[in-house]
Amino acid sequence: MHAIDIIAKKRDGAELSQEEIEFFIQGYTRGEIPDYQTAAWLMALYLRGMTDRETLDLTLAMAHSGDVLDLKDIAPFVADKHSTGGVGDKVSLVVAPLVAACGMPVGKVTGRGLGFTGGTVDKLESIPGYRTDLSEAEFKAQLQEIGIVLTGQSAELAPADRKLYALRDATATVDSIPLIVSSIMSKKIATGADAVVLDVKAGKGAFMKTLENAEVLAEAMVRLGSQVGRSVVALISDMNQPLGWAVGNALEVREAINTLHEGGPADFREHCLVVAAEMLMLSGKAADTSDALTLALETLASGAAWQKFRALVEAQGGDVGYIEEPERLPLARLIEPVPAPRSGYLTGVDAAEIGMGVVELGGGREKKGDPIDHSVGMIVHYKVGDLVQKDTPLFTIHADDEGKLAAARERVLAAHTFSDTPTQRLPLFYRRVAE
Amino acid sequence: MHAIDIIAKKRDGAELSQEEIEFFIQGYTRGEIPDYQTAAWLMALYLRGMTDRETLDLTLAMAHSGDVLDLKDIAPFVADKHSTGGVGDKVSLVVAPLVAACGMPVGKVTGRGLGFTGGTVDKLESIPGYRTDLSEAEFKAQLQEIGIVLTGQSAELAPADRKLYALRDATATVDSIPLIVSSIMSKKIATGADAVVLDVKAGKGAFMKTLENAEVLAEAMVRLGSQVGRSVVALISDMNQPLGWAVGNALEVREAINTLHEGGPADFREHCLVVAAEMLMLSGKAADTSDALTLALETLASGAAWQKFRALVEAQGGDVGYIEEPERLPLARLIEPVPAPRSGYLTGVDAAEIGMGVVELGGGREKKGDPIDHSVGMIVHYKVGDLVQKDTPLFTIHADDEGKLAAARERVLAAHTFSDTPTQRLPLFYRRVAE
Repeated sequence: MHAIDIIAKKRDGAELSQEEIEFFIQGYTRGEIPDYQTAAWLMALYLRGMTDRETLDLTLAMAHSGDVLDLKDIAPFVADKHSTGGVGDKVSLVVAPLVAACGMPVGKVTGRGLGFTGGTVDKLESIPGYRTDLSEAEFKAQLQEIGIVLTGQSAELAPADRKLYALRDATATVDSIPLIVSSIMSKKIATGADAVVLDVKAGKGAFMKTLENAEVLAEAMVRLGSQVGRSVVALISDMNQPLGWAVGNALEVREAINTLHEGGPADFREHCLVVAAEMLMLSGKAADTSDALTLALETLASGAAWQKFRALVEAQGGDVGYIEEPERLPLARLIEPVPAPRSGYLTGVDAAEIGMGVVELGGGREKKGDPIDHSVGMIVHYKVGDLVQKDTPLFTIHADDEGKLAAARERVLAAHTFSDTPTQRLPLFYRRVAE
Repeated sequence: MHAIDIIAKKRDGAELSQEEIEFFIQGYTRGEIPDYQTAAWLMALYLRGMTDRETLDLTLAMAHSGDVLDLKDIAPFVADKHSTGGVGDKVSLVVAPLVAACGMPVGKVTGRGLGFTGGTVDKLESIPGYRTDLSEAEFKAQLQEIGIVLTGQSAELAPADRKLYALRDATATVDSIPLIVSSIMSKKIATGADAVVLDVKAGKGAFMKTLENAEVLAEAMVRLGSQVGRSVVALISDMNQPLGWAVGNALEVREAINTLHEGGPADFREHCLVVAAEMLMLSGKAADTSDALTLALETLASGAAWQKFRALVEAQGGDVGYIEEPERLPLARLIEPVPAPRSGYLTGVDAAEIGMGVVELGGGREKKGDPIDHSVGMIVHYKVGDLVQKDTPLFTIHADDEGKLAAARERVLAAHTFSDTPTQRLPLFYRRVAE
């Protein structure tokens, strides 16, 4: 078998066999097939597409490119959630401890931010000492001990996905449905998740700009989940405006802590409760939505979710003093509230522009490997549909540099659009996709 | 400007600007844009295609990626020919000295063989001492002195093409019309050719398997030639069966020498005369086809073409003793005539199979950089349409290894197909394409 023949076959639009896909993934992971051949193959996959069968084989080949965690001796059932990425999406920081506090182990491998999209690993690293590089042995031991892990992707888990993702990022082959499906699901399979709730974002601040594309992706992942014997539900949620108020790493950790203490923005709190309820239903901890929401609300109110978060931070080496007094978390030198330029109803708070504004402040990455400043970011004070009064603070910038602050101010002002007449609020969720 | 944006633009089917194409070619040539990004771009170009305007800009960017020879102070007009590659295609070895002997300077940069396709550089290297690595200064000096050069592609001429061709070869992006056009024409522009006769092969032993594809390629090159102010004529010629009798490096040099001495196979001789006549007409040495053919026939008969070939070999360091006594050229250890398995009319002599048979004998390359054995190859004794008598020699194998000989015997026997009834001969040329 030769890589070039497999490239040519997909280039010509034919369906690849399981053996051909495994040959390519194994060869690439071992370094026997070079980046340039893989880049040509990825572009052919992007433009020619893949059948469900090919996508399944690609996912399994990637999942088995490294270790596959077997957690059966640690926990009979492990739940996970995954977001396709957005702006202000700190859902995992609340949902993982909330579900774990309900007695359902959550072992989660999460990623870094890129472009306007934030990443949970970056957010957690705002907490001094917090380790996101757990070994597999540490992952298993901690999951057994406290029922929760939130760590970065190790070199042993789905190494094909790590290599392929970096290459896709450099070759304009990221936003392909089968490639996204296989990237997400291969990691979930490798980390041993039995149930997965997928938070598929749609809108300006998401990979999937349209509801239609988000639905295609959600349906493909749910189908694939059932093919590999995992319980998968996808929620298609709005990402036209940021989720919650805070965008930026330490700012988002503070907002998550507030939410665990029953504060925080209403939209973010509701989003977390709905995702947690789906995880509780999938894993059999609740019979229906009403039971699941009740359990989640009670667990949040009892302080058990907060205690689980505290145990997580402690177990992974973080200094709990910082989360007990979150004002000690990294804080930017310059904090400037920006007044509303007019009165009126908000018709748009462009999530992509706000995400890119945070990247410009130094709180996100233009390309992989860029360093980030955990302190900087943005607090938006209003949601689409809100009536805003002129000269009251529209948003607040946290910056470390006057020039960057001024640039972000202009960009984020332009990201807010107004109308004289009342305007529809945006839904939190558009659709639930299940088998 | 970023490479990834240019990849994404072509991926989405948009037309690239001249600036974007130049940015990519310059960046790749300088090593600033890596192979993997270029591979993704090539696959997007392959699958999305290029407009005539993009193809022109790509050709010029590649031509100007290195030195562009200015031959005006050496010769007011320089002619060239180019074949898209085939089996038994030793036309340049006869046509270049023939046209040069008619007083039209021929400065030709030629390539190596790959797969079933032979290369003129490999054939010339059968002659002990012959140098195919002339510098630009040597190229110019020799062209001025004797009016003929036949050398390999130097690192200074169209370096983008060298790099891109190697990458296309490894990424299944070779047979794209705009990429082929730009590869061929960029080299012709860089070597300063004023007139070019393109020999576009069609059939089993050619890149273009169908006449339709060959016509599309021929028309694209003729259009591009006129856009860059060069006189270009394309001849679409048959490559279903080998050209002439000999396939293999030293065997083909012998056949070319025989042809220069007015021997050789009739089809090959006629092919050379027609290509030479086109070059003479393009460069104004003959007014019409009749005059051009007369001049070419007389120059061949006078021995002047042979003398020019001898001068060429001498000027490039070859030992003329070997071409004066061609039986001294490399000769294989095993020479086996293979008898016809039956009597009948030949309906096919599959050029690709015969080319691959020679590769298996060691006379060609499976991949770039493979060493080759100049002595081995094949002499076919019949053409499609010939009546063959059982047990007379159908072809003769020249090999250095019994196992390889046996494998080639089976393959080449299977490449000959027969019929009981008379069958149509194949034309030498299908069509002439000119402005």
